[in-house]
Amino acid sequence: MTTIAVDAMGSDEGVSAIVEGVAQLRAENSELSIVLVGDEKLLTAAMYKQGVRDNDTRIVHAPTTVSMNDKPGAALDAMPNCSILRAAQVVAEGQADALVSAGNTGAVILASSRHFTRLGGVRRVGLAAVHPTMERHGPHDDPFALMLDVGATLQCEAGDLIAFAAMGSAYSQVISGIDDPRVALLSNGTEAIKGTPAIVEAHRALAKRKDINFVGNVEGLDIPRGSVDVVVCEGFVGNIVLKMLEGVGDVARDLAKTAYDTKLRYKIALGMLASGIKKVAALTDWKQYGGAPIVGFDHTVIKAHGRSNGRAIRNAIKVAAKTVERGLTKRIRDHLEAAPKGEA
Amino acid sequence: MTTIAVDAMGSDEGVSAIVEGVAQLRAENSELSIVLVGDEKLLTAAMYKQGVRDNDTRIVHAPTTVSMNDKPGAALDAMPNCSILRAAQVVAEGQADALVSAGNTGAVILASSRHFTRLGGVRRVGLAAVHPTMERHGPHDDPFALMLDVGATLQCEAGDLIAFAAMGSAYSQVISGIDDPRVALLSNGTEAIKGTPAIVEAHRALAKRKDINFVGNVEGLDIPRGSVDVVVCEGFVGNIVLKMLEGVGDVARDLAKTAYDTKLRYKIALGMLASGIKKVAALTDWKQYGGAPIVGFDHTVIKAHGRSNGRAIRNAIKVAAKTVERGLTKRIRDHLEAAPKGEA
Repeated sequence: MTTIAVDAMGSDEGVSAIVEGVAQLRAENSELSIVLVGDEKLLTAAMYKQGVRDNDTRIVHAPTTVSMNDKPGAALDAMPNCSILRAAQVVAEGQADALVSAGNTGAVILASSRHFTRLGGVRRVGLAAVHPTMERHGPHDDPFALMLDVGATLQCEAGDLIAFAAMGSAYSQVISGIDDPRVALLSNGTEAIKGTPAIVEAHRALAKRKDINFVGNVEGLDIPRGSVDVVVCEGFVGNIVLKMLEGVGDVARDLAKTAYDTKLRYKIALGMLASGIKKVAALTDWKQYGGAPIVGFDHTVIKAHGRSNGRAIRNAIKVAAKTVERGLTKRIRDHLEAAPKGEA
Repeated sequence: MTTIAVDAMGSDEGVSAIVEGVAQLRAENSELSIVLVGDEKLLTAAMYKQGVRDNDTRIVHAPTTVSMNDKPGAALDAMPNCSILRAAQVVAEGQADALVSAGNTGAVILASSRHFTRLGGVRRVGLAAVHPTMERHGPHDDPFALMLDVGATLQCEAGDLIAFAAMGSAYSQVISGIDDPRVALLSNGTEAIKGTPAIVEAHRALAKRKDINFVGNVEGLDIPRGSVDVVVCEGFVGNIVLKMLEGVGDVARDLAKTAYDTKLRYKIALGMLASGIKKVAALTDWKQYGGAPIVGFDHTVIKAHGRSNGRAIRNAIKVAAKTVERGLTKRIRDHLEAAPKGEA
């Protein structure tokens, strides 16, 4: 049986959203085994309240928590028994197969690096995220594409970008079921010579790879359109892009709301467009996606959004279980090992 | 009288859009003096056709043109009499006050650097552009903000970012009429310690400046919202951001068109929303803005979009004239000289 360790304390919403996610899984008769790591009293009370029984949901007590505003390194040093370190330890010791946390991203990555091993060929891990696109992707017609890195590694060497391409391709195959995902580097032009030196070098190396369907560079224009399945960029750029898309969604909702508040004519028209607007809102609703994978460790780590509700936590746990059951780590390792010597 | 030199050959639309822009200015009784640099025969024919007389519009013959796909350096070396080099020369020799071109951006920058001098404290010039925002800016309620660099300098040192902040602030004062423009660095978090080493260093230096209203870092979220007047970033990031916004506009138009084509209900609703949709389209319509200033030289250079129509060319020429009449170069020089020794 697959077991997922969940850092139950890091979320902005407290333990209740975490336990609600578990309750939703139980309501669906999910057979996943869950280890909730956090304050035993709070968790016991929340489980009782939500009707989650303790036969397939175990609590591991962790008395302290890293908050969103803590500096990761200092916080982990000061709190060796904090929930994210204990949760990573539970996985490292083999008591669980993968890790889910809605906590401080830096602390999740650092705690993972203290307990897990980076795969061969990985200098720096990547944080991946899906972003909404107009075009559909893969056998399930997913209205989103994968992007990495979105903030784990601000500045990348060519080798980092190559490793992200390999890992993103593996993730897309295993989780989205796309046989031969189209992978591209995000740059300031489609030509092979465009971009920073790291991008130009990565382009040259990826163009030779047989195991990765590298389609070249894409530009900013292609991101909302979604012309490829996996977009590779350095963490600084990925962070800006992802937050910009979130901002565009916010602005669209605000404009719609303003129109809605002011004019009867708009009110009627927006009412008629409601199903279309809902579709767009669904596109930019991260809650349904279930979190961002951190790739490059020998265990899966899923970072759920800090503001995750029960449904988002449920989805994050399900994605984590999928990565285990479908052998993501092995697939990533195979991709990384396919690199010619000296690259990635 | 202010005189503007216009590279009349670089545009994707040929000389006709350029001459149409001049014809529009004449129809408005503009007193600007224009020097059109390009193929004399083509220009004479186009001027005749558009009814532009030659008393205040002079032609300087240039037999060759750099195309959009040419490599700038090689093209300029091979064509010493090409229109962009001759147009820059006309300005450098004092026959005109500022330069406008809709040609190959790299060639415009390179031709300018061959004929103009970089201002003291400017290691690399910046290409600035306005982007649409939800919030309004300045005394004219402009629905856009300024961003630089958007592609002239892919990777920046701290000194470049500081110089861009100073030059962007001056441009915003002189052209948008904002007394004390809010200037921010684009980063992956608002805290002073967030970002690449160059951003962190620039943040520290800008925080001490009395002559620049530096409000700190903004994130990707703030770009569509438009919470500041001037966004400073390195050229690679600015290029991605600007093209992404263009892509979002394209996708919105496509989605609207699809809806329009398919369902009567949508058709009626979209008809009712038409004025709102036009407002959004106007926001993302670069044609009305009149081009992107290249800042850092001792003369104003305005890069118009390659697909500029007559109206866009007219606007670019008017903006160029405004920079001359309002003393942009002097203002930029003052800002650059206000930097403490050793910075910017």
